[in-house]
Amino acid sequence: MRDTVVFDLDDVLFDATFLKRVARERAVLSMIDAGLPVDFETAIKALFSVIEETGEDYGKHFDEMLEKLGIKWDPRIIAAGVVAYHNTKFSLLEPNPGIFKVILSLRDEGFRVGVASIGPAVKDWEKLIRLNLHHIFHIYKVGLSSWSELFQELDPSTTILVSANPSGIAEASRAGARTVRLLRGRFSHIRSKEADREVKDIWGILSAVKSLSEGL
Amino acid sequence: MRDTVVFDLDDVLFDATFLKRVARERAVLSMIDAGLPVDFETAIKALFSVIEETGEDYGKHFDEMLEKLGIKWDPRIIAAGVVAYHNTKFSLLEPNPGIFKVILSLRDEGFRVGVASIGPAVKDWEKLIRLNLHHIFHIYKVGLSSWSELFQELDPSTTILVSANPSGIAEASRAGARTVRLLRGRFSHIRSKEADREVKDIWGILSAVKSLSEGL
Repeated sequence: MRDTVVFDLDDVLFDATFLKRVARERAVLSMIDAGLPVDFETAIKALFSVIEETGEDYGKHFDEMLEKLGIKWDPRIIAAGVVAYHNTKFSLLEPNPGIFKVILSLRDEGFRVGVASIGPAVKDWEKLIRLNLHHIFHIYKVGLSSWSELFQELDPSTTILVSANPSGIAEASRAGARTVRLLRGRFSHIRSKEADREVKDIWGILSAVKSLSEGL
Repeated sequence: MRDTVVFDLDDVLFDATFLKRVARERAVLSMIDAGLPVDFETAIKALFSVIEETGEDYGKHFDEMLEKLGIKWDPRIIAAGVVAYHNTKFSLLEPNPGIFKVILSLRDEGFRVGVASIGPAVKDWEKLIRLNLHHIFHIYKVGLSSWSELFQELDPSTTILVSANPSGIAEASRAGARTVRLLRGRFSHIRSKEADREVKDIWGILSAVKSLSEGL
């Protein structure tokens, strides 16, 4: 039986880093337009430091941003940020060019393909559905609490993980899986030694997976 | 000084009833497509009864709907509902035909115009911004806890409230304001005696407000 190739979601199936950056910048511009009385640099710095402190998936980034700036809570300004953020997210959320063909091509060659993600399950399913990638995989393990959870159900010795996240790569490697690291997104400047292959572009995934699978 | 005309948000500025109904129907269809193993009638009945029990603004309608149906929590099915609901909401959210011209016409004739709503402030500001009606008013009282809160700041004797909600009309009337009831939306079949004027269409607001204001 051929290997199972599991794709991570963020920065592999779509460009999460680009999308979040643009969505946040447009949110801040809208908030300023709605009356936020600070300049862009000050505002975006405050937003980034809130995200740093509260995590990516916290639901009240804009509220805490106002607090950090010493500005009274204002639903109009917050709503302006929310609308711009969601409009940007929905309009830019599309698959990384090439990824659909890479997945399909691996399927055609007899690999089992899967998607897995660490994070809130409903939000990650929303991404998959909006990306129109919710029918292409054999295996869906969305909303995992860790990569080791994935390997409770998949045999690591027949699994190849494709991820842009060095800590995911390290975890999968420790579990005994082979790994392909895509050098994209917010972790792309971080070095790691654990990956069996490193590739810079989407098409590189195909040859990396195939050579790994053949034991090369 | 001329009167202040305050517009309620839901079913006056836009067709909230239509939009919610279509969004919920499409959400249920998407959930069935994503694997919800019941028919449309059963599913929508369960959803409506959850909304009845938990209120319109509760954030976990789809989760509780699965529970009510005795179906295991499934993030894929819930995400399918969320995506369809939001896509519908965003694509159908537009001002009631005519309302922009009615508001502008009242402004031109010297009325002060305002918008007020009872509900979550950020969500209601989101609606105003998406409707592109966030610059047209003189007065914004969004996210009130009750109509009496409005009249802590506005003199009821110089205020005319335009609302589709009979309980809003009753409250404003008790507070001493004049009222125009628009017979639209989910309350349109409910009789009420408190309104000074009742109108069936958007253009009717204009003549009702003017005749009320002239003491006719």
